[in-house]
Amino acid sequence: MLLENVNKPSDIKGFSIDQLNVLAKDIRQVILDTVMENGGHLASSLGAVETIIAMHYCFNAPHDKFVFDVGHQCYAHKLLTGRQAEFRTLRKMGGMAGFPKRNESEYDVVNTGHSSTSLSVACGLSRALLNQGSDAITVSLIGDGALTGGLAFEALNDSVTVNKKQIIILNDNSMSISENVGSTAKYLLKLHSSNTYKSFKNKAYGVVKGFKIDGVANSMKFLYKAKNSIKYFLQGGMPFEQFGLRYYGPLDGHNLSELILAFNTAYADNESCIIHVVTKKGYGYLEAEQNPAKYHGYSPSKKSNVVTFSSAYGESMMKIASKSDKVYAVTAAMREGTGLESYAKMFPDRFSDVGIAEGHAATMSAGLALCGYKPYFAVYSSFLQRAYDSVIHDICMQDLPVTFCVDRAGIVPDDGETHQGIYDLNFLRLVPNMAVMCPKSMEELDAMLEWSLGYNHPLTIRYPKGSTSVNSAVCDIELGKWDVISTADTSLVILACGARMVEVGMDVVSKLSGNGINATFVNARFVKPMDSEYLNSLEGKTVITLEDNVLAGGFGSSVLEYFNANDITAHVSCYGIDDQMLTHATIAEILKMSNLDADTLTEKITAKYKLYN
Amino acid sequence: MLLENVNKPSDIKGFSIDQLNVLAKDIRQVILDTVMENGGHLASSLGAVETIIAMHYCFNAPHDKFVFDVGHQCYAHKLLTGRQAEFRTLRKMGGMAGFPKRNESEYDVVNTGHSSTSLSVACGLSRALLNQGSDAITVSLIGDGALTGGLAFEALNDSVTVNKKQIIILNDNSMSISENVGSTAKYLLKLHSSNTYKSFKNKAYGVVKGFKIDGVANSMKFLYKAKNSIKYFLQGGMPFEQFGLRYYGPLDGHNLSELILAFNTAYADNESCIIHVVTKKGYGYLEAEQNPAKYHGYSPSKKSNVVTFSSAYGESMMKIASKSDKVYAVTAAMREGTGLESYAKMFPDRFSDVGIAEGHAATMSAGLALCGYKPYFAVYSSFLQRAYDSVIHDICMQDLPVTFCVDRAGIVPDDGETHQGIYDLNFLRLVPNMAVMCPKSMEELDAMLEWSLGYNHPLTIRYPKGSTSVNSAVCDIELGKWDVISTADTSLVILACGARMVEVGMDVVSKLSGNGINATFVNARFVKPMDSEYLNSLEGKTVITLEDNVLAGGFGSSVLEYFNANDITAHVSCYGIDDQMLTHATIAEILKMSNLDADTLTEKITAKYKLYN
Repeated sequence: MLLENVNKPSDIKGFSIDQLNVLAKDIRQVILDTVMENGGHLASSLGAVETIIAMHYCFNAPHDKFVFDVGHQCYAHKLLTGRQAEFRTLRKMGGMAGFPKRNESEYDVVNTGHSSTSLSVACGLSRALLNQGSDAITVSLIGDGALTGGLAFEALNDSVTVNKKQIIILNDNSMSISENVGSTAKYLLKLHSSNTYKSFKNKAYGVVKGFKIDGVANSMKFLYKAKNSIKYFLQGGMPFEQFGLRYYGPLDGHNLSELILAFNTAYADNESCIIHVVTKKGYGYLEAEQNPAKYHGYSPSKKSNVVTFSSAYGESMMKIASKSDKVYAVTAAMREGTGLESYAKMFPDRFSDVGIAEGHAATMSAGLALCGYKPYFAVYSSFLQRAYDSVIHDICMQDLPVTFCVDRAGIVPDDGETHQGIYDLNFLRLVPNMAVMCPKSMEELDAMLEWSLGYNHPLTIRYPKGSTSVNSAVCDIELGKWDVISTADTSLVILACGARMVEVGMDVVSKLSGNGINATFVNARFVKPMDSEYLNSLEGKTVITLEDNVLAGGFGSSVLEYFNANDITAHVSCYGIDDQMLTHATIAEILKMSNLDADTLTEKITAKYKLYN
Repeated sequence: MLLENVNKPSDIKGFSIDQLNVLAKDIRQVILDTVMENGGHLASSLGAVETIIAMHYCFNAPHDKFVFDVGHQCYAHKLLTGRQAEFRTLRKMGGMAGFPKRNESEYDVVNTGHSSTSLSVACGLSRALLNQGSDAITVSLIGDGALTGGLAFEALNDSVTVNKKQIIILNDNSMSISENVGSTAKYLLKLHSSNTYKSFKNKAYGVVKGFKIDGVANSMKFLYKAKNSIKYFLQGGMPFEQFGLRYYGPLDGHNLSELILAFNTAYADNESCIIHVVTKKGYGYLEAEQNPAKYHGYSPSKKSNVVTFSSAYGESMMKIASKSDKVYAVTAAMREGTGLESYAKMFPDRFSDVGIAEGHAATMSAGLALCGYKPYFAVYSSFLQRAYDSVIHDICMQDLPVTFCVDRAGIVPDDGETHQGIYDLNFLRLVPNMAVMCPKSMEELDAMLEWSLGYNHPLTIRYPKGSTSVNSAVCDIELGKWDVISTADTSLVILACGARMVEVGMDVVSKLSGNGINATFVNARFVKPMDSEYLNSLEGKTVITLEDNVLAGGFGSSVLEYFNANDITAHVSCYGIDDQMLTHATIAEILKMSNLDADTLTEKITAKYKLYN
């Protein structure tokens, strides 16, 4: 493999276009082999291979600062920057992360994982480089889907005030994770199919004579001039001059000659610019090309017949939407991820996918609620952080009946720090008017959604990624009432919060029983309001709280607050995640490293129990 | 006064333009008189008088849904919708709010207070109205400054997919709160001074023949056609067609004939549109016109020689920026509000005002930090909620030395629910790597900023609006060390968190002493990390925690967590804000209604102390 001779970006600077194409093939093969084994972001990584090769060929990292938006497309970058050996450990505990990480390499300028942050980071980097008199520049690679996020727009608006050249490469694959939506998408579609684009593309390609490019600056003048005929662009046709940006493109993002010609010209120029690159998600792997949403995040262990919380959510939503014509489902570019594909087909008039725009999804839901609808916004826990003010200001402050269906809550495997849903319980329960529920099983999720039809206030229903072994004959849901799963006549009471910890807790109860200790086991399905009647009965008991989110201000803390405010004395131990970020690993590994695995918990609870009995 | 005869919007529908102009004058007078007495948002309210009159004249509220962005400009709307009698209670406890409130009037569709939410709300309302087959439309009034907020852009991008007519009125005064920044502002400036605009304006004005408008639709065709010659518009020249919006304007926002002509035409048309209205902040009150930032929020009690935390912050920033060339100040349209006016003049190369774009301000700061700078982002507590994911994902996850200088933290007077800074302590302390400090005085704020120069991790320094009576000979700041203000040889220890509660607490200590109870009094200036050595010494004591933020997951909760995790038994009582929104009132009134005034606290603490001694 040619790739094996590449240990750093400068190793490819002497390569011919033919060699670079071989390199692209090698990289694709390694990505494919590794992701099929380890799982990962396949489609986006395959789509960006040539773009990233051309970036390293034309620009000078780490002197120049590469900023990868989201970062899920950066595998080729990792392979070109001395990390081939580690690549096979992708997403494994202690191994290479699936996103850029500063502690892995000096070529990784910033850690990412969420969308639409790159242009903001680049603005800051550029201001710093300007003040430092550096000739280094920032090169951001951002997908078209990420541009619907308000943060990217805020950065574009501000970037004009930065008196320092910046290069923005727009990776346009007409997708965010599902298909792209809104005026951005419409415009790009128009652009792609226009004659101007086609003829321009052919001509631009025509000026490249083999690999040795003569008169680059000259031929690129044509390329640059084209901006006048393509005048309106992206984001509803913003002319980039208004943002202080020159425009190059659109380019064939899988044609290395074309990319290199444009990148070199942009590099030689003094002005900030946007380079519009058209790519195909999953390029080079037919199955992924044809089904990019499926291969967005590929997991080798995914069994199609396992019912996940997400798919159960979709099923339940169809049920309650059939019962009540007020039900309205909202998502932010996560239609498949949150299980709403079938729902969207069945209830197109009561479904909105607003694109990567979590704040808007939440505030738009407030608008729906103000006119009598009952919106359900399905969102990944870590992305809900982006809508926090909408939760507080637009929904809870006016006590509107918007339900947040928080998927990927708690510990999340493989993706690492940025995707952990370990803060939501804490930042949601502190907001007045918000109620927070955690189902232990899919049957209970279904019952909660059904129950929510009669509840007319802000509500969160929080459930983990994947599935659970816990089944349940559903008990009736009642506001603030917990579900006592098993009762023992000892003083030991375990309060487990959420599906993951109920599952672990059941294991703990059984292990404790093996040690001769019987425990009462409670599914604390309401985190807010809590079951005060039940809590009042715990005077003098040994009380264990289990949660898979940070302890500071979490469920256990809430129990401590209640006991303290109501003068209840109990021996409480709170187990959850300490004040630290959680890296990528399997669920079992993360539970273990957080001391939340059944063995560790059993040991600790046994010791605690023996102290008082 | 003509205004006195107006009890509902329909009362003005028969008015002549002359009468409407008299009405505008009346409204202005009432606003001016009231705000001079009660304080309030003067400049923006005065600027929007004619626009709001024309809205009520041409559209049919409450059938049509008026959505006021921010809502600080809505005084004329309140006066026209049956609330003249209550208007003199503006911003007083139990009186009329300074922002739209659904519980005040059916004409107030949505509660607001923060910027850039209106278009999102309108999208949701429109989707609901569409499904319900209603002929009612949404009319949003949004300032140009609010358009720099990413949420507004997310909504514009989504609005094209809503198959229902929406009217957006853009109130363009070239200001957000300070002057507007970025490419939006640059473009609008160009537009205002262009000949096209001037000649267009004259012609558009020319077609209005007195009040009785004949052939409106016809003459408006000209107005509409003008969009082609003005082609590029706002936000870096977005042509609004791409957003599915017709464009009318720019109009003289103080000319009622011109406004009514345009509004009627837009109302009769079937398509969504944006109506661009140019106004002058403070119009009709010369002092406010000439000094709109000063009169943005007017307070009659403002004494120019009282040193506030904000002005102290500005002073300290100049000091530390002189010491270290790494210091970089960032603000999001709050240069004056956060005290940075002089700093900005002294260190223009190390100052960025990014406009109303809190997320970008935070993430851009991450970029600055990645290149070796030490950014200080000064932001109001309630607006920091808009940057929560940037705090977690872009700053804390990579442990970057960005300092959040959180102004208006804790209880805030007069502005009501939306401006209370009562959540930050809770949602910040739960994020790993974040340290949180609360100075008790301006001297201590200064010492903390100086100390922060040597601290290279995420940091929050949180201080209240206004001033304090507490002075302090500054003790040395040490990470996680509290400041014991007075020691008593009793078992009663009061831990006060933040300037407001230290001030109240001192009063409490003195009152307790009057009751014959001596208390140890501690300024708990580090909320995270806490002073574990000190906490370890409290076994068996009666411990009181004081904080002016919500109790759920707050400072007191943190003390409970520590005691519980470290097996320390103490009699703890936590005082703070219960699980409820806080309305508008004076600081003293809000403290009283929250049971955080010195008298109530003294009574409760006395009772608690006597229980154990």
